[in-house]
Amino acid sequence: MVQAFPDASPTKWHLAHTTWFFETFVLGAFDRGHRPFHPGFSFLFNSYYEAVGPRVERPRRGFLSRPSHAEVLEYRARVDERVGRLLETGPPEEVVARVVLGLHHEQQHQELLLTDAKAALGTNPLRPAYRSEPPPAPSSAAPARWCAFEGGVVEIGVADRASGGRGFAYDNESPRHRVLLAPFRLASRPVTNGEWRAFMEDGGYARPDAWLSEGWDVVRADGWTAPRYWEQRDGAWWTFTLGGMRPVDDAEPVCHVSHYEADAYARWAGARLPTEAEWEIAAADLPVEGNLLRLDAPRLAPAPSPPDDGGAPLAMFGDVWEWTSSPYSPYPGYRAPAGALGEYNGKFMVNQTVLRGGSFATPRSHLRASYRNFFPSRTRWQFSGVRLARDA
Amino acid sequence: MVQAFPDASPTKWHLAHTTWFFETFVLGAFDRGHRPFHPGFSFLFNSYYEAVGPRVERPRRGFLSRPSHAEVLEYRARVDERVGRLLETGPPEEVVARVVLGLHHEQQHQELLLTDAKAALGTNPLRPAYRSEPPPAPSSAAPARWCAFEGGVVEIGVADRASGGRGFAYDNESPRHRVLLAPFRLASRPVTNGEWRAFMEDGGYARPDAWLSEGWDVVRADGWTAPRYWEQRDGAWWTFTLGGMRPVDDAEPVCHVSHYEADAYARWAGARLPTEAEWEIAAADLPVEGNLLRLDAPRLAPAPSPPDDGGAPLAMFGDVWEWTSSPYSPYPGYRAPAGALGEYNGKFMVNQTVLRGGSFATPRSHLRASYRNFFPSRTRWQFSGVRLARDA
Amino acid sequence: MVQAFPDASPTKWHLAHTTWFFETFVLGAFDRGHRPFHPGFSFLFNSYYEAVGPRVERPRRGFLSRPSHAEVLEYRARVDERVGRLLETGPPEEVVARVVLGLHHEQQHQELLLTDAKAALGTNPLRPAYRSEPPPAPSSAAPARWCAFEGGVVEIGVADRASGGRGFAYDNESPRHRVLLAPFRLASRPVTNGEWRAFMEDGGYARPDAWLSEGWDVVRADGWTAPRYWEQRDGAWWTFTLGGMRPVDDAEPVCHVSHYEADAYARWAGARLPTEAEWEIAAADLPVEGNLLRLDAPRLAPAPSPPDDGGAPLAMFGDVWEWTSSPYSPYPGYRAPAGALGEYNGKFMVNQTVLRGGSFATPRSHLRASYRNFFPSRTRWQFSGVRLARDA
Amino acid sequence: MVQAFPDASPTKWHLAHTTWFFETFVLGAFDRGHRPFHPGFSFLFNSYYEAVGPRVERPRRGFLSRPSHAEVLEYRARVDERVGRLLETGPPEEVVARVVLGLHHEQQHQELLLTDAKAALGTNPLRPAYRSEPPPAPSSAAPARWCAFEGGVVEIGVADRASGGRGFAYDNESPRHRVLLAPFRLASRPVTNGEWRAFMEDGGYARPDAWLSEGWDVVRADGWTAPRYWEQRDGAWWTFTLGGMRPVDDAEPVCHVSHYEADAYARWAGARLPTEAEWEIAAADLPVEGNLLRLDAPRLAPAPSPPDDGGAPLAMFGDVWEWTSSPYSPYPGYRAPAGALGEYNGKFMVNQTVLRGGSFATPRSHLRASYRNFFPSRTRWQFSGVRLARDA
Repeated sequence: MVQAFPDASPTKWHLAHTTWFFETFVLGAFDRGHRPFHPGFSFLFNSYYEAVGPRVERPRRGFLSRPSHAEVLEYRARVDERVGRLLETGPPEEVVARVVLGLHHEQQHQELLLTDAKAALGTNPLRPAYRSEPPPAPSSAAPARWCAFEGGVVEIGVADRASGGRGFAYDNESPRHRVLLAPFRLASRPVTNGEWRAFMEDGGYARPDAWLSEGWDVVRADGWTAPRYWEQRDGAWWTFTLGGMRPVDDAEPVCHVSHYEADAYARWAGARLPTEAEWEIAAADLPVEGNLLRLDAPRLAPAPSPPDDGGAPLAMFGDVWEWTSSPYSPYPGYRAPAGALGEYNGKFMVNQTVLRGGSFATPRSHLRASYRNFFPSRTRWQFSGVRLARDA
Repeated sequence: MVQAFPDASPTKWHLAHTTWFFETFVLGAFDRGHRPFHPGFSFLFNSYYEAVGPRVERPRRGFLSRPSHAEVLEYRARVDERVGRLLETGPPEEVVARVVLGLHHEQQHQELLLTDAKAALGTNPLRPAYRSEPPPAPSSAAPARWCAFEGGVVEIGVADRASGGRGFAYDNESPRHRVLLAPFRLASRPVTNGEWRAFMEDGGYARPDAWLSEGWDVVRADGWTAPRYWEQRDGAWWTFTLGGMRPVDDAEPVCHVSHYEADAYARWAGARLPTEAEWEIAAADLPVEGNLLRLDAPRLAPAPSPPDDGGAPLAMFGDVWEWTSSPYSPYPGYRAPAGALGEYNGKFMVNQTVLRGGSFATPRSHLRASYRNFFPSRTRWQFSGVRLARDA
Repeated sequence: MVQAFPDASPTKWHLAHTTWFFETFVLGAFDRGHRPFHPGFSFLFNSYYEAVGPRVERPRRGFLSRPSHAEVLEYRARVDERVGRLLETGPPEEVVARVVLGLHHEQQHQELLLTDAKAALGTNPLRPAYRSEPPPAPSSAAPARWCAFEGGVVEIGVADRASGGRGFAYDNESPRHRVLLAPFRLASRPVTNGEWRAFMEDGGYARPDAWLSEGWDVVRADGWTAPRYWEQRDGAWWTFTLGGMRPVDDAEPVCHVSHYEADAYARWAGARLPTEAEWEIAAADLPVEGNLLRLDAPRLAPAPSPPDDGGAPLAMFGDVWEWTSSPYSPYPGYRAPAGALGEYNGKFMVNQTVLRGGSFATPRSHLRASYRNFFPSRTRWQFSGVRLARDA
Repeated sequence: MVQAFPDASPTKWHLAHTTWFFETFVLGAFDRGHRPFHPGFSFLFNSYYEAVGPRVERPRRGFLSRPSHAEVLEYRARVDERVGRLLETGPPEEVVARVVLGLHHEQQHQELLLTDAKAALGTNPLRPAYRSEPPPAPSSAAPARWCAFEGGVVEIGVADRASGGRGFAYDNESPRHRVLLAPFRLASRPVTNGEWRAFMEDGGYARPDAWLSEGWDVVRADGWTAPRYWEQRDGAWWTFTLGGMRPVDDAEPVCHVSHYEADAYARWAGARLPTEAEWEIAAADLPVEGNLLRLDAPRLAPAPSPPDDGGAPLAMFGDVWEWTSSPYSPYPGYRAPAGALGEYNGKFMVNQTVLRGGSFATPRSHLRASYRNFFPSRTRWQFSGVRLARDA
């Protein structure tokens, strides 16, 4: 039930909200005679859909001791059952499309549930683990290598259904469109904890010349000296993981850094962050494979990158979301869908930054090369890391 | 687990904190070989004792999803058992005195647990009841009557143990001392909801002439238009109670008003609030009886005052804590006890106001005529009401 | 024009507000045919009189680049002239009373003008002097001595005009009334800078046991380690004065400490602050003399106390306002005057603390033994210091 | 001296800061034997150059009653004189380049001085004019027309000096580079006040469907219902101008709207904002002419657009800065200059939005088609307006 800060939500709320999404956009719209499970739930579990109606203030989601966990589980069972029955009736294509959207929506919240549960446990002075995990095996990271790409006029994004697109994608990935890229290079793997320590030891968090002005203000105001969840104990760096406190592993990709930090690191390293178009072109032909969410994963954490085979960039999918340099903006010709579902992505297209590639907490079936995640620049509680780029 | 606002605490925290009090001040001080139940609990469950050590920031008490409720209950059982065993050893008098203090401390938290649980449930848009209660019976309130008192040089407070005091009292009730009172009158019963509505209908919350300047600032900043928990529904006033939403009962004592409101009401009514010395003199010879906490009470709410018999003021004990006009200050000659327990009361003796008489949520064995409760002027989530006074 | 923080006002505003006071309460009420000097000035220069009408938000007083300084001086000249003419007509007694009140009001603002100008200049990194002053002569302070007083039922306060009072006094000094005092002792002089340094060197600002809980919170939140305006330069303590930066003089009374600090110092010293009744009884028979505001004063600063003659307490008037332990409350039987002037003092009688005795910036004709100044507990920009008391 | 809010600066500060810029970057770097005019001025008048050293907190610029206006004017005269003498010595090219940069810097502050003075006067309840101006002549606005552009791979930006660029440009306009544009259309003139009123009357400020989520939050938090400086008086809309309060002129370009408002208006109008590349391509061949800053201008305000001649878009330069849809990002291959001057533009390239075209307060010699102005999305005190675009 803990809401560690306003941007995070309690586990119970995630469970109820994803159910409300199905109830509202599938049952409420297409199930004739549907009556809300509870008259107050739309107020409690609507996240941000203005067109649906008013809702509880975001910072108060942690105050909802009622409905109980059991009532929420019953809510889920009942809505699941009704959606199942509706699907058996051979409903219009739009119903199916919304169920698919609802499933992808729930996958997003599966990851958020983990980020938010980690944040909640991480505020607890006891630093309790989310679950018991074996300690990581000793590992090492090969040096990063630059992978070259040609640039030119390329195509990114996906055609939407109306334009013949197949398979699911969010509206913000459309339309497929041409962009002009200069030749560029991309690092063969994400930046590691060991590399990040070199930045820290070179005064990274104390030298304004590396930082965007806004980022430097946040560094000082919030007293950042390391990635979120890092703590110094007896002279060594430890980090809080879903398996509890662990010594920082130099070979793992750095995680829980903000866009400001990613940008500062890149400047300090004499490189830059990739644009989202560069990232997508580099990933377009790669299989969606990597350290992604698995129910039987022994550890819920980023893992050292696989051995470098000299080919395409490694670990593009999974491990950590990779900050790009691209502000989150509509693609040329983007149109938000009509109605409340048009609020899903479109209204957030300002003052946020795009991340690509998914994390260890993203289900494989949820990802694509064109997938655009986005968060504000100071966000650190997500599983976010860094991959460097350079002009060719 | 909900902490509705920083001044309120979660139920689980109350349970653990009262146990920590016994563990720290009884076992930790007198049980040879005592080892803390858990090395982190003093940090989590110390409320404000600087001399004991650091503690979790107050607004974060609602984030403690660990230890679990079951672990806290086990903590309570284990500490209770050890205290019991210590008592069986025939320990020094100071041990017994601290156990008694711990019991009174726990009684305070029993009331706070209810005020805080009400606050938590009251922030929930569903307004869920704390427990099921029968609706109140129809009732009416007799007009208030002025009871006259002579004044003169009188004695208030209690002698502490060192000065021969018998029975338990908090340090802030000592020393017994003389004060000079002018003749005064006290209302025969607390102000009722019906009387409060007359104040509201006369623009009470919209006329600055009735208010202290600080109070008027709060009225506007917080948008007060009625006591806390009152809501207008279809033109009628309802109020949230531990039994759920109820229509406001005009005969009941008004509850959940701040010192600012109590003071404004009194000024509007051409009266004033009593000083704590006046209140104590008026209550000194009365039995501690009234609408006090009972496990088998059908309702946890203030009740209309009993029929007026023309004698002493009614309902001095129970129903609602009565705001006095007295700032919470040390009595002449007051000395805080040495050590951490000296922080219990003494360090709060500034910018708060004394309340007297207990509420429906106060156990009878916890109260005395000399009992000094205290809260800041804007406090409304306590069970606080008003009794008027006048110069004779 | 600088407003260093919301509680302070710009010099120009003080000049205009004191004029507005005369215009509103004298000319507006008694000068037939009076038309406001400017239709907007009541909005700009009303301080806090709700009954007069709305006004500019307090923190915005520093934004008033119009009217210009010259226009304000013209405003003053015009209102002065009209008041003068009204007085020549032999007006009703109430007119004279209000002019007298206006003059005392202006004397208060003369002192505030200095406190606020010092605050404004003190925020300037250049620490510019208000005026050129000679450095203080070397001096020393005799040890403090305890002066004993008997207590008993005594009278404090002054009778108001209606009750036969003669001479001017504010409404909050009435009525004259009896109080019961235990025998007490008062220090022969205020606490000095040298004594304050001993407190600091004994960890005064770092030991919570000395502090009220609220005070300790402020110490940490605001990072207090010394009185306001003290700065450490090359290992020595300096202080900003109206004559610029000076080394701290150990023999001078400590100045610019809050009630929280005064209270902590007294507790640390094994003493307490006097009540306002104790202070008034001790000062009742003393002449109003001392280091008070003089146009030809070479220095605007507290001065070391005169040599101890073994008699009455020294420097009761002037130098620094002395914090008492008394919350600012109405005297028994106090009635605020009707109308807007009733807001002058009465509506502030909560959560402030009384100071007594005036400072080097108070005009002699403004002071009395019964004079009650009052400020919130954290106030430090006033010329406020400490005199200790003890039970006899 | 007024600082209406932290982002605005007092006039005196602008005068001193622009002088400090010359002193620091010209004299301090190249004038052998230069000694600072005053040891404290770099602390007072450094705006944001971390590499130069610490500085007064931004919100405290309005507290600097010292140095006086006269001292600042003397500072300006002395620095001007020394820079003049340095130029007469035939200094290295870099000196000349920095003087040119300093002049462009001062031109920026000339405009900011007007925006900030307007903000200061606009917070004054008297709404005093900056200067006396004749009322605008009656006028009308022709309907807007769509001007079509072809798109394709085009070039924007300017080559820097190292790459053979001639004439002055800021570093953020470089490098000149290719971008791919789809065909687009641009409105023939900026949106007018009359058109904005239609938006308002259609509930523009009350319908969340038109707004970005962040923008809608600000609308509600700040209570926006019209452009900044608009006020309703007796049922009509008035606006505060540098010439005082005026009725809103329907034919003038709307001014003082934020990026959020510009974006919402465009969405409501079924259009969008142009990208900065689209804007630059449309303006590339137009002369820098229009309602720009002139010392002898009878009015300092936007003016109705000239009669439509059916050709290129009108009023691209001057009147109001036009919000684009482009986040302020580095151009591909951008490198900030080394040292403190690298902080001029580069460190602000996140979470701001580009504006193009200058305003009535921009000097003609300061503008170019490639000029990139930038402000955060909620900024309204600048002279900012809207021009619509559409896909072809």
